[in-house]
Amino acid sequence: MSSPPVLPTLSPFVTATAGRNMTRPAYVAVTCGVLMMVLLTTDPLYAAMHGVINALLWACLAFFVFEWLVRLRHAARTGRQWAYTFSFRGIVDAASALAVPIALAAGVSSRSAWLLGMFWVLKVVPGVRGLRQLRRVLVQESGPLLSVLVIFLMVIFLASVAEFFLERDVQPASFGSIPAAFWWAVTTLTTTGYGDVVPITPLGRLVAAGVMICGLGVFGLWTGILATGFAAETRRDNFLRTWESVSKVPFFAKLGPAAIADVTHMLRTIDLPARTTIIRKGQAGDCMYFIASGEVEVDLPGKTVVLAEGAFFGEMALLGNNLRSADITTKRVSRLLVLDLVDFRLLMARHPDLAETIDTEAKRRALENK
Amino acid sequence: MSSPPVLPTLSPFVTATAGRNMTRPAYVAVTCGVLMMVLLTTDPLYAAMHGVINALLWACLAFFVFEWLVRLRHAARTGRQWAYTFSFRGIVDAASALAVPIALAAGVSSRSAWLLGMFWVLKVVPGVRGLRQLRRVLVQESGPLLSVLVIFLMVIFLASVAEFFLERDVQPASFGSIPAAFWWAVTTLTTTGYGDVVPITPLGRLVAAGVMICGLGVFGLWTGILATGFAAETRRDNFLRTWESVSKVPFFAKLGPAAIADVTHMLRTIDLPARTTIIRKGQAGDCMYFIASGEVEVDLPGKTVVLAEGAFFGEMALLGNNLRSADITTKRVSRLLVLDLVDFRLLMARHPDLAETIDTEAKRRALENK
Amino acid sequence: MSSPPVLPTLSPFVTATAGRNMTRPAYVAVTCGVLMMVLLTTDPLYAAMHGVINALLWACLAFFVFEWLVRLRHAARTGRQWAYTFSFRGIVDAASALAVPIALAAGVSSRSAWLLGMFWVLKVVPGVRGLRQLRRVLVQESGPLLSVLVIFLMVIFLASVAEFFLERDVQPASFGSIPAAFWWAVTTLTTTGYGDVVPITPLGRLVAAGVMICGLGVFGLWTGILATGFAAETRRDNFLRTWESVSKVPFFAKLGPAAIADVTHMLRTIDLPARTTIIRKGQAGDCMYFIASGEVEVDLPGKTVVLAEGAFFGEMALLGNNLRSADITTKRVSRLLVLDLVDFRLLMARHPDLAETIDTEAKRRALENK
Amino acid sequence: MSSPPVLPTLSPFVTATAGRNMTRPAYVAVTCGVLMMVLLTTDPLYAAMHGVINALLWACLAFFVFEWLVRLRHAARTGRQWAYTFSFRGIVDAASALAVPIALAAGVSSRSAWLLGMFWVLKVVPGVRGLRQLRRVLVQESGPLLSVLVIFLMVIFLASVAEFFLERDVQPASFGSIPAAFWWAVTTLTTTGYGDVVPITPLGRLVAAGVMICGLGVFGLWTGILATGFAAETRRDNFLRTWESVSKVPFFAKLGPAAIADVTHMLRTIDLPARTTIIRKGQAGDCMYFIASGEVEVDLPGKTVVLAEGAFFGEMALLGNNLRSADITTKRVSRLLVLDLVDFRLLMARHPDLAETIDTEAKRRALENK
Repeated sequence: MSSPPVLPTLSPFVTATAGRNMTRPAYVAVTCGVLMMVLLTTDPLYAAMHGVINALLWACLAFFVFEWLVRLRHAARTGRQWAYTFSFRGIVDAASALAVPIALAAGVSSRSAWLLGMFWVLKVVPGVRGLRQLRRVLVQESGPLLSVLVIFLMVIFLASVAEFFLERDVQPASFGSIPAAFWWAVTTLTTTGYGDVVPITPLGRLVAAGVMICGLGVFGLWTGILATGFAAETRRDNFLRTWESVSKVPFFAKLGPAAIADVTHMLRTIDLPARTTIIRKGQAGDCMYFIASGEVEVDLPGKTVVLAEGAFFGEMALLGNNLRSADITTKRVSRLLVLDLVDFRLLMARHPDLAETIDTEAKRRALENK
Repeated sequence: MSSPPVLPTLSPFVTATAGRNMTRPAYVAVTCGVLMMVLLTTDPLYAAMHGVINALLWACLAFFVFEWLVRLRHAARTGRQWAYTFSFRGIVDAASALAVPIALAAGVSSRSAWLLGMFWVLKVVPGVRGLRQLRRVLVQESGPLLSVLVIFLMVIFLASVAEFFLERDVQPASFGSIPAAFWWAVTTLTTTGYGDVVPITPLGRLVAAGVMICGLGVFGLWTGILATGFAAETRRDNFLRTWESVSKVPFFAKLGPAAIADVTHMLRTIDLPARTTIIRKGQAGDCMYFIASGEVEVDLPGKTVVLAEGAFFGEMALLGNNLRSADITTKRVSRLLVLDLVDFRLLMARHPDLAETIDTEAKRRALENK
Repeated sequence: MSSPPVLPTLSPFVTATAGRNMTRPAYVAVTCGVLMMVLLTTDPLYAAMHGVINALLWACLAFFVFEWLVRLRHAARTGRQWAYTFSFRGIVDAASALAVPIALAAGVSSRSAWLLGMFWVLKVVPGVRGLRQLRRVLVQESGPLLSVLVIFLMVIFLASVAEFFLERDVQPASFGSIPAAFWWAVTTLTTTGYGDVVPITPLGRLVAAGVMICGLGVFGLWTGILATGFAAETRRDNFLRTWESVSKVPFFAKLGPAAIADVTHMLRTIDLPARTTIIRKGQAGDCMYFIASGEVEVDLPGKTVVLAEGAFFGEMALLGNNLRSADITTKRVSRLLVLDLVDFRLLMARHPDLAETIDTEAKRRALENK
Repeated sequence: MSSPPVLPTLSPFVTATAGRNMTRPAYVAVTCGVLMMVLLTTDPLYAAMHGVINALLWACLAFFVFEWLVRLRHAARTGRQWAYTFSFRGIVDAASALAVPIALAAGVSSRSAWLLGMFWVLKVVPGVRGLRQLRRVLVQESGPLLSVLVIFLMVIFLASVAEFFLERDVQPASFGSIPAAFWWAVTTLTTTGYGDVVPITPLGRLVAAGVMICGLGVFGLWTGILATGFAAETRRDNFLRTWESVSKVPFFAKLGPAAIADVTHMLRTIDLPARTTIIRKGQAGDCMYFIASGEVEVDLPGKTVVLAEGAFFGEMALLGNNLRSADITTKRVSRLLVLDLVDFRLLMARHPDLAETIDTEAKRRALENK
């Protein structure tokens, strides 16, 4: 549908590129491009192999231009060209493709122009799953974080003025102006402490000690805010991922909606590719699994049992001895719900009927596999 | 009422100034004044444009004097002159207005006197909303924080004495007295580590290693205390802001008081100015909204619907497909209660009658907008 | 009972000293002694006033010897001499009294001997209330903290060996032996970074970068453990202090024991000296108070009402407008239970009968004070 | 069973060694070997006693070779030789035994070869109990931690390129290539701040200030994630350890399964060796104990009472006055469940029948011991 007839072999690749995901070649290009950019600045190495480095840089650039054009065309076809162009991804794609050529065209020296390839690394951002979660934390907690930033800037300003006043006569080179004192204040308040600019008068040192202690406080507030926000976000994220899967497991359907909400808090969702071993015989087991989608294969002595959507497994290690009794492997891409030993016990205690269901099934399986 | 007849055009401005809030001109004056103060100390720039810088500094000072006088007069009229004069704000206003002139009058050199303009920056403090919350955390946790401070000071003292004893003979310049050793101890315990004063004897270094590890511990305790306090304060602050709004939404009125207390923990209050887009068509939706006060406009194809106080919207994206189906914008200053997807599901599970109300309304809207 | 007849005027002082608490003179002596000890090492000042400094040091020492003897005699009389002698306090008292004289007698130079006065500062430790709480956190979390310490030491050891191997040839002075490399590793892993010893080979720097990142991780683990422990300890401490007072307030007696346990989690205990203003008229109110012991005085227009043990006040600001309507002051040492606005609302929602009691009382008071 | 007939006296030692635990001789060998390795590099000491040091190093090495062989043979006998060889422990054992001899055989100088003894220290890892818990936290939170690492690396890369561009002309020695700028970026972002490489241009310093503030943010996120994970893991770990013991105490057997799950959250398990004093007469008591396994001895005036599995003690200090009324000591290895004062009160409030049982028993004991 979006494959140009002139390049038939590229067709699946173009489709993947247009689909807004990082393709494998894109990862290779980013890694290679960034590496070459770094090598470009290391003199002896560059002198020895500047031909290879330049060729690879141009190849990476060509790839990014191609990628940008494919995505632009795809966006135009689906009528979202403006949405794409002004999205974060669109801007990064454009900068990756255009920054270096424009700089070269504008007469910037070759070694400076290629430094603009640093935008390439930003292409990876949308592919990192946890970044969205982190961004939500920063947005949710933006109020308190900004307050701490205001305190931070105010302490830096007041400390700079004070040190400027106290040290300007004895160290005119380091504390000769307030912007110069800013530099000292930032390195001190963040407890970096380069030591290139250090107060030497007794009063200046007293102020500096105060600034360092404030630094600890700012650190503490910052961390406290982020820790609070992060804990909330982790719970939310897990709940949302699990909620939809829970309703697909008949085992939980008996429970009323309020109990299902409780159960959702206990479960954790994991997505596994095909042919992944989930349980290995003889290992210690500390959780059981429900199949939300997909299929798994139980490797029993002499036979193989397939469990489909809605089934559960791994309960035996939680009920009796602690060891897994069979290898279990996914047959295709599967989504599993994991119930930890702790929550298993809480759940069984609160819902005796569920406990009975699991017990009956475990006994039936034990008999069958004898 | 508080506008002087001689300055009719200033009247609304004076009223705003008297009203104890930071006005926009005040923000401009603080920013400009502080910037000029910084430029005053940067030699080449000051030499080039000292006329402009001096003029702006005097203008800012004049503004602060004027502001202080207006507030003093307003306070005197309402019989609160003493309360105002000795409040934090009153003291900052007085210092901002008087510190520089008094210093100049006392014969302090012009470049030193203007440094007292650093008090101007404190005018911003009462305007930062989150600072009150941070102050409450510090007050609530003052006990443990003081304990940590005592540990901190004790470690510094003992480490200073020990290092003074161990290093005074080999480094008389750096460790020649206990106050000199203090400076080393503070930079080390806060893990700033300038490196201008470093122990060189083996035993001195052993003590220093101990101090650094204590530094990590102090950091950890400090952060742990602040994180604990901050988490509690965030919950409290949100509860208080939301509580009053909840009772104004008829949707929740059906619930008993105990359930309302529960619901309050789930909601988050946001205040929006007029003409702000809350929901954009086609975006992914992860929360629904209740109108506590104000009005919003729903931009449907071919018509515009206005929702008033007590109505809710955004529920469709939570029930069916994940995407918003219309643009929604505030008509005037509005306060909304936000119910996150996670809490929406919990609430619906626990209160089936609310679920039904929302379902019915969502179906009615879907039919109507077909 | 324990006052020696020869010193009748000292009698109450001796009793207080024997009672194992820090008396006010003891605080003065510690502060003064430590200050003099510091001044002893600052050359120009000591030269100018060595007479005063020496006299004060001897006076402080005499006080500590006296204090130790009084406590020893008191302990001997009550048959607990061994318990006292080998308790933390007993050892500190003995060290404070004996360390300096023994050193002087052993021929140590005067200026070195007085440095042993650093033990004086430890006398303050048992008086800091929060330290016990911190110690409990450290004890409770000692397992994980020790694990982190083991990781810490292992990283330091492995990094030292690696850097010794990589840097010994290029920097024999700094990395010439593993103990020398230890010093580098500690300053780096704690992120202190003096900069006196810095790796310069590329591989050495790579190892150093790894160590720094591990430093962040150790920091994070340490903080996470302490934060977790501290949150638990704070809850526990508050519960214990409040539990006993709650049962003395008849208002809560109506609740069953399970509900009282709930209420205890909501209340916070504060102890106030006599004649302290608790509530100031016109202030914003965000909590109400129950009197667990003591008496308070309500300053109404034209009359003064005294509230005794078991009464409550401050509820009006929570029910109606937000402002306090009278000054309230303690008449004698009082213990109050504070109920925050948030918890007040939750409590009223869950226990309608309590809500009614408070409402009735508030109305009665409003009528009465009209 | 696994003792070779030729070495009868070694038999129990070999069995212990084969059993995969760190034996006491192994701890001695690791400590001694590592110490000798450190001394090997400290020149004056090594010159003075190189005979002893070399002998001890060879002895330790011999021990590790012996240990590895015993374990290999044991693994081979039980048919698990491959599992052992490729486990973490197997690899560390092999490296400890072979690294130094191979290096010596390959002609590496003696002083360099012995440095490979640094692998010895890794033998301690499986013996540290808390490390498993920490590893679980790192695994559970690996997603967010990796996201933060990606941010960390991205900030380092972008900052390095920016500083390289800004500083390469003024400081070609320090910022002459991107890898050189990396070194600066890592020391700055981790707030180590050696100060050996410092930006000096105004723009370079502005970028550096941004990097330092990001450093605080990375710190905060890292800590927040670890704190969140650690809190969850601590709860889980305690629950699992306690769960099995609870069911063995008849006192709790009366409770339904849901209540037992609640109680499990309140209890903490401790394991004590024989002849350990648990309670000392006259101490303040803040918890009571249940015996999950083992026996304890109560030292009453004139007689000694033995309490066996399932009994409880220490309840008197919680009910009446705060002081312990007898010494209590373990008779053999015992596992106790600790119930804190806070949880004791909550439990008594929620389960009046348990309260009665404890009350009755306490009264009976008080009568008996009169």
